[in-house]
Amino acid sequence: MLVRDIAQALGAPLDGDGDIAVQRLVHPAQAESASDLALATSPQAAAALAETKASAVVVAAAAARPNRAFAAVIAVTEPRLALARLTALFDSGPPQQRGVHPTAVVAADAELGADISIGAYATIGPRSRIGAGTTIMPQVTVGAGATIGAHALIHSGVRIGHDCRLGDRVIVHGNAVIGADGFSFAPDLMSATAFTAAVTVQRVHSLGNVVIGDDVEIGACTTIDRATLESTRIGRGSKIDDHVHIGHNVTIGESCILCGMVGISGSVVIGNRVRLGGGVGVADHVRIGDQAVVAAGSGVASNVAAGAFVSGYPALPHQRTIEHQLYLGRQRRLHDRVNAMASRLEELERVMGGVVKK
Amino acid sequence: MLVRDIAQALGAPLDGDGDIAVQRLVHPAQAESASDLALATSPQAAAALAETKASAVVVAAAAARPNRAFAAVIAVTEPRLALARLTALFDSGPPQQRGVHPTAVVAADAELGADISIGAYATIGPRSRIGAGTTIMPQVTVGAGATIGAHALIHSGVRIGHDCRLGDRVIVHGNAVIGADGFSFAPDLMSATAFTAAVTVQRVHSLGNVVIGDDVEIGACTTIDRATLESTRIGRGSKIDDHVHIGHNVTIGESCILCGMVGISGSVVIGNRVRLGGGVGVADHVRIGDQAVVAAGSGVASNVAAGAFVSGYPALPHQRTIEHQLYLGRQRRLHDRVNAMASRLEELERVMGGVVKK
Amino acid sequence: MLVRDIAQALGAPLDGDGDIAVQRLVHPAQAESASDLALATSPQAAAALAETKASAVVVAAAAARPNRAFAAVIAVTEPRLALARLTALFDSGPPQQRGVHPTAVVAADAELGADISIGAYATIGPRSRIGAGTTIMPQVTVGAGATIGAHALIHSGVRIGHDCRLGDRVIVHGNAVIGADGFSFAPDLMSATAFTAAVTVQRVHSLGNVVIGDDVEIGACTTIDRATLESTRIGRGSKIDDHVHIGHNVTIGESCILCGMVGISGSVVIGNRVRLGGGVGVADHVRIGDQAVVAAGSGVASNVAAGAFVSGYPALPHQRTIEHQLYLGRQRRLHDRVNAMASRLEELERVMGGVVKK
Repeated sequence: MLVRDIAQALGAPLDGDGDIAVQRLVHPAQAESASDLALATSPQAAAALAETKASAVVVAAAAARPNRAFAAVIAVTEPRLALARLTALFDSGPPQQRGVHPTAVVAADAELGADISIGAYATIGPRSRIGAGTTIMPQVTVGAGATIGAHALIHSGVRIGHDCRLGDRVIVHGNAVIGADGFSFAPDLMSATAFTAAVTVQRVHSLGNVVIGDDVEIGACTTIDRATLESTRIGRGSKIDDHVHIGHNVTIGESCILCGMVGISGSVVIGNRVRLGGGVGVADHVRIGDQAVVAAGSGVASNVAAGAFVSGYPALPHQRTIEHQLYLGRQRRLHDRVNAMASRLEELERVMGGVVKK
Repeated sequence: MLVRDIAQALGAPLDGDGDIAVQRLVHPAQAESASDLALATSPQAAAALAETKASAVVVAAAAARPNRAFAAVIAVTEPRLALARLTALFDSGPPQQRGVHPTAVVAADAELGADISIGAYATIGPRSRIGAGTTIMPQVTVGAGATIGAHALIHSGVRIGHDCRLGDRVIVHGNAVIGADGFSFAPDLMSATAFTAAVTVQRVHSLGNVVIGDDVEIGACTTIDRATLESTRIGRGSKIDDHVHIGHNVTIGESCILCGMVGISGSVVIGNRVRLGGGVGVADHVRIGDQAVVAAGSGVASNVAAGAFVSGYPALPHQRTIEHQLYLGRQRRLHDRVNAMASRLEELERVMGGVVKK
Repeated sequence: MLVRDIAQALGAPLDGDGDIAVQRLVHPAQAESASDLALATSPQAAAALAETKASAVVVAAAAARPNRAFAAVIAVTEPRLALARLTALFDSGPPQQRGVHPTAVVAADAELGADISIGAYATIGPRSRIGAGTTIMPQVTVGAGATIGAHALIHSGVRIGHDCRLGDRVIVHGNAVIGADGFSFAPDLMSATAFTAAVTVQRVHSLGNVVIGDDVEIGACTTIDRATLESTRIGRGSKIDDHVHIGHNVTIGESCILCGMVGISGSVVIGNRVRLGGGVGVADHVRIGDQAVVAAGSGVASNVAAGAFVSGYPALPHQRTIEHQLYLGRQRRLHDRVNAMASRLEELERVMGGVVKK
């Protein structure tokens, strides 16, 4: 890639030689030759420019220019956006040959799009469909009747259950499980008040599926359970981190952010652009409105209004959780104060006894 | 299936034509033809009956009859139990051919029961035994000497370690790991008071196994570690959700319910019919008595008596946790009140000074 | 193994016949014959000696000698250390043939060390290197350019992403995922204050890798994400339990202990010999100093000093968290006391009114 083209892709001014060809995007300290482009938009990385072997660098427009001269300097105004664009430019994806590996077991009636890649020991079930340009890494299982869109990337060990549907450009990371059965019993044992030996537990089977929109990303070891009758749904553009659990019958809107280890119980409904911090738990049947934010580690036991920011266990409006923490920190003082007041009160009563007696 | 037979299986009265043959159980809005049986026991689903294409419907006996006429109406008195039975009737399981797939690697001395299904690329270790009617989906690994009972269902990517034993009708969902080594070191570093660079960490190896009773269900990406010398045990009929971790040497009784992301540390002992909400953590060596309930998100640091209902971090009797929450909510008022009392006390002291002086 | 050699390996005195040959290490109640060595260092196991079929036993030097006579008695002064050494002596690892299984797909240019074992259906990518004596269990995927050291043990279903590097004697348990992409977007949506429909989410791609030191152990279903440009690093000797999540750009020092379900957000830096209890969450960019301890279930939102012991949500010095719990437990009494003081104050004011009037 030429430095000129990179500057243009970033929409950023280039100072120097645009004809330098670069092959890797690196931290300045990692640069090994002039073919490495050094990214130095953070103060820590900028400090490392003093010793870098790179001759082409990307810096933050707002920061002081490097003390050293470089053959090419690109100055970006929005470093985080530049990071996204630069890493996209230099990402060629996991190395994986196109075509169907001879060891893959592909059902005769599976429909495969053009320019597909199916890795070693992948199994592609009957009546399934995989869109053009999609990459299936080794040892993935795609169940009967499942559908994957175009230009998707399914990493090794992912399990896509029968009849589940994934959109275009979906990325699923290693060992995620889409379409396991929901966790549902009759009677509903988490709410049953008397669960004695006399109660017979009956399994509610999962006849539905999972439907995932375009541009969704799903983390490693994440599980999304199928619905009882209908579909567990993840809306377009939502991003889901590793170890997230999404229960049966859940609906998640578009462009949501679910950080690592979030757990969503059955039948929860989440709006658009909702952000859940790491480790958040959401109780069953709860509704969370558009653009709500839940702080990391919170337990959401009741509905959250659109736009709200909640935190804590149980989750409350964030200001109230902060207030609770502050008051907890003031308890020693409060107790001391009440003790002192009690002494003064006693003294007054003692004196008053005298006064009254008078 | 005939509507008549379904009504009989549910033990529910049928009003109309019992000879209608149905093939799918659906939400009323999903029905595409008269061969779909619409389940409309919830108010939301009942409202959708107005527009459904189904002609046979299941409704709640307690609800008002539909405004429209249907060819067949089954009215159930216990909707959740009916859901369990109906979904069981219509669940044919994941599509999977019977027999041993030619790519499965089955040890010569493995014992396979009748009417078995072993999927593509599964590996079945030496001296292992798999019971009649059991289904092993593609890419499962069964270790040496492992035993699986009859009519079990092992989903893709499950790892069953050597010498582990699973009962009859056990269901294990995708990518669960049974029989990984316990997490145990000498000295016990979580309790060691001085863990300096001088301390050498030695691994306690796991020579035991995991033993799982009949009718247990284990969720996707759940891990159950093997014991040090004996067995980590899951009792008959217990149901374990996705992302649950059960440490080494743990004993879990019968018919327990462990919701998603529960974490059980080493050597914990749990009784029968215990229910643990989502994300509950239990410290090592803790004992939880029969029929105890732990609310979602709680951290259990000490023993829980049989029948107790605990919640919070650390978990306390639920009423105390609720009381703590209530008092936290009253702190502002309490502080205001103490402030006001302090002013009145000062005023009294000021006046009393006068009185006393008088 | 001869009892004499075992006593010597433990550095413990042997009382009796050193020539007894034993084949298994068992709990006294499990012993089936004289070839079983009974480990009875706990009071519970010592009580079971009365009925054991073993003739050679290991007991705690500090405990009373067994009432029965045994052919050989080894008395250990440090039972937990003895447990580590004994289990190591008797652990022959998961049964797995040496050599490369004929079904393994090994790239032509992969470098394999001597005395290696690669199981059925494992896939070993181009330019990867696997050290001498290493065991790769069935259905592991090793990505292009990945490196695994000598005498490592990689359990079934583990995913090692391209270009990741693992040291010598590393153990990785079933279905762990090393080298999934980091969870990173522009703008940084967890901190963005206005995430409206107008905001376009751009993915930050992960061009870096994961580097894992010697003697690290990684639990089942654990995920360690690759760095954006550099390396996510796990230091030598660190032990990581099941279901742990380690985000992109994280650095973890040497000999750390991370219990089950710990979640470490992006760019966290953790020192040496740090201990994190089960379910601990750590917010992004937090720094935790050497030998710090975080109690189970805590949420760490800010830096933790070396040697500190913190707990709670948010995590505070443990003494303060304990103090907060104590004060919460005293709220009812405090409120009652303030109520009583208010009555006394009113009474004083009433009387004072009279006094003043007088």
